[in-house]
Amino acid sequence: MRIILDAMGGDNAPLAPVEGAVKAAETLGVDVILSGKPQEIMACLEKLGHKEVPKGIEILPASQVITMEDNPARAFKEKKDSSMTVGLQKLKDGEADAFVSAGSTGALLSAATLMVKRIRGIRRAAMCPVVPTQKGGFVLIDCGATADCTPEYLLQYAFMGTYYAKRTLGLENPRVGLLNIGAEPSKGLPLQLETHALLTQAHQEGRINFIGNIEGREALLGGVDVLVTDGFTGNIFMKTYEGGLLMFSDFMKTMFKSSLSTKLGYLTVKGQVEDFKKIFNPNEIGGTAMVGISKPVIKAHGSSNGYAIYNAICRAKEMAESDLIQDITANIEHMRISGGKTAEE
Amino acid sequence: MRIILDAMGGDNAPLAPVEGAVKAAETLGVDVILSGKPQEIMACLEKLGHKEVPKGIEILPASQVITMEDNPARAFKEKKDSSMTVGLQKLKDGEADAFVSAGSTGALLSAATLMVKRIRGIRRAAMCPVVPTQKGGFVLIDCGATADCTPEYLLQYAFMGTYYAKRTLGLENPRVGLLNIGAEPSKGLPLQLETHALLTQAHQEGRINFIGNIEGREALLGGVDVLVTDGFTGNIFMKTYEGGLLMFSDFMKTMFKSSLSTKLGYLTVKGQVEDFKKIFNPNEIGGTAMVGISKPVIKAHGSSNGYAIYNAICRAKEMAESDLIQDITANIEHMRISGGKTAEE
Repeated sequence: MRIILDAMGGDNAPLAPVEGAVKAAETLGVDVILSGKPQEIMACLEKLGHKEVPKGIEILPASQVITMEDNPARAFKEKKDSSMTVGLQKLKDGEADAFVSAGSTGALLSAATLMVKRIRGIRRAAMCPVVPTQKGGFVLIDCGATADCTPEYLLQYAFMGTYYAKRTLGLENPRVGLLNIGAEPSKGLPLQLETHALLTQAHQEGRINFIGNIEGREALLGGVDVLVTDGFTGNIFMKTYEGGLLMFSDFMKTMFKSSLSTKLGYLTVKGQVEDFKKIFNPNEIGGTAMVGISKPVIKAHGSSNGYAIYNAICRAKEMAESDLIQDITANIEHMRISGGKTAEE
Repeated sequence: MRIILDAMGGDNAPLAPVEGAVKAAETLGVDVILSGKPQEIMACLEKLGHKEVPKGIEILPASQVITMEDNPARAFKEKKDSSMTVGLQKLKDGEADAFVSAGSTGALLSAATLMVKRIRGIRRAAMCPVVPTQKGGFVLIDCGATADCTPEYLLQYAFMGTYYAKRTLGLENPRVGLLNIGAEPSKGLPLQLETHALLTQAHQEGRINFIGNIEGREALLGGVDVLVTDGFTGNIFMKTYEGGLLMFSDFMKTMFKSSLSTKLGYLTVKGQVEDFKKIFNPNEIGGTAMVGISKPVIKAHGSSNGYAIYNAICRAKEMAESDLIQDITANIEHMRISGGKTAEE
């Protein structure tokens, strides 16, 4: 398996990507193709003790870097020799199995959509993170790729999220819930009302396991495996949850550090606290799939360290090895609304 | 001051309301008028050791009870002799200063809007809880009264939230943020884009202290005093935060209870944990104001115990003593969009 990694994307590039790539090549049995500035990549390899390009690593030269200042929709065209554009072109050309980047989310989404293209019939690609909880986590789809959604997009997210949960979390019959402000079918805005009807129909046809509307509270307490929502609401959900987690971890830190006695108290629960922190450490998951693109594309978070990049490469490998894209392609006819709003660019 | 309390509203009625009323009458120097079934109220008073109606308590007879099964929009009309309808009628007639209920939110909102009426010019009343955080909390407006909002509603929420934060939290120049999926003015759906422009204008005119878009994460970490949003998004925000809090408190409980050694560890941080729990205990705040109604109406949560009802009465007293409604009335001309969508029922 060959995975292309944007060596110039993210706050800690190129060192973190190079570090993650070397670890992945050593331990996962994959080849990693680093797209980016050869000299800078070589300098990082040397820093990590490699005087030559190690086995399992290739360098794909690209002289430009897409930054957060570039226009996300046009960056890949304006910087044709960027690490992102060059890497995605190689994926498109069938010379690799997946692409990973910690660069600008918007630029990656635009470039993947317009260069690699969506799966035929898919209206919008979705960002599909696994949200960690104490009960093991669930798939959130979409968390912000498309703010303004139609019911048909959400129907497609429900199918894609189901396949993603089956193929990557190994769930047999994932429970799909629609994020809403109450459990009753009458709750929500017109988007939720119409989506509820579409998901109910897909459930009755035996295509998805729709359990109805669900509130954020119940989702976080283990009530769902696939949480379907528009990108605006999904993003609000995720950022709020993140804020809560940051607040708690800050509280715990302050609490245990306040005196010698609390520091001793900490020692009694150290194991549990470390397990808890590990569950919620974004570096552990590493990457979020852009589901709906015709080839595997993974977004690593911007502040990724080498370990996070390594984990993002693991996600890319899992996705490339899975039948996720085939599942979506084979069932696309059930994800369309006849005569529905097309909204295709 | 005279405060009417719906003695039949909430999961623990009538005992919890009666308990809260007695405590309030004893300690706050207010008269509490209990609307509801006299025999049941008397039985509760006896249970609490009062053979006669104590000083500061009155009973306002009402033979019916609005339940969660009643249609929220019509309940107050269909049950004309309900504790909610009779109590609100008394408020409307000017025979008391505020009304408190732990009954159905939807029924209370409809009844307050249609019987007591909104402040002239206010498009929608908003549910305006104080969201507790480690940094002291902020006002969320709206948390679910109106799911489908126009930019004008949100402009009005920004003003009303500002006055509420000034009058009840004592803040001089509360920072108003618009809940969104990024800080840049270009972020969000058309609702957020248009609202951002309106709030910017109100800020430039010196009427509110608008700090721009804010994400849920930053809001929870202390970045805002008044968080403005539509009722759908506000409800998603609140329920997600609640879910995170529940998950976290569940984690702490399990962690500290897992062995004798962790139980000893708990003793070292007991004080901090109890302070933390107190901050986030919904019974401490007790009630959420329905801001925009022409007289003070407070919703206590459905599962309120006597202490929560007592605190809801405190909130009602604060609101009745404050100049909140006068502030809104005096500034209503600045909260309208000339030629804007009226959307008045």
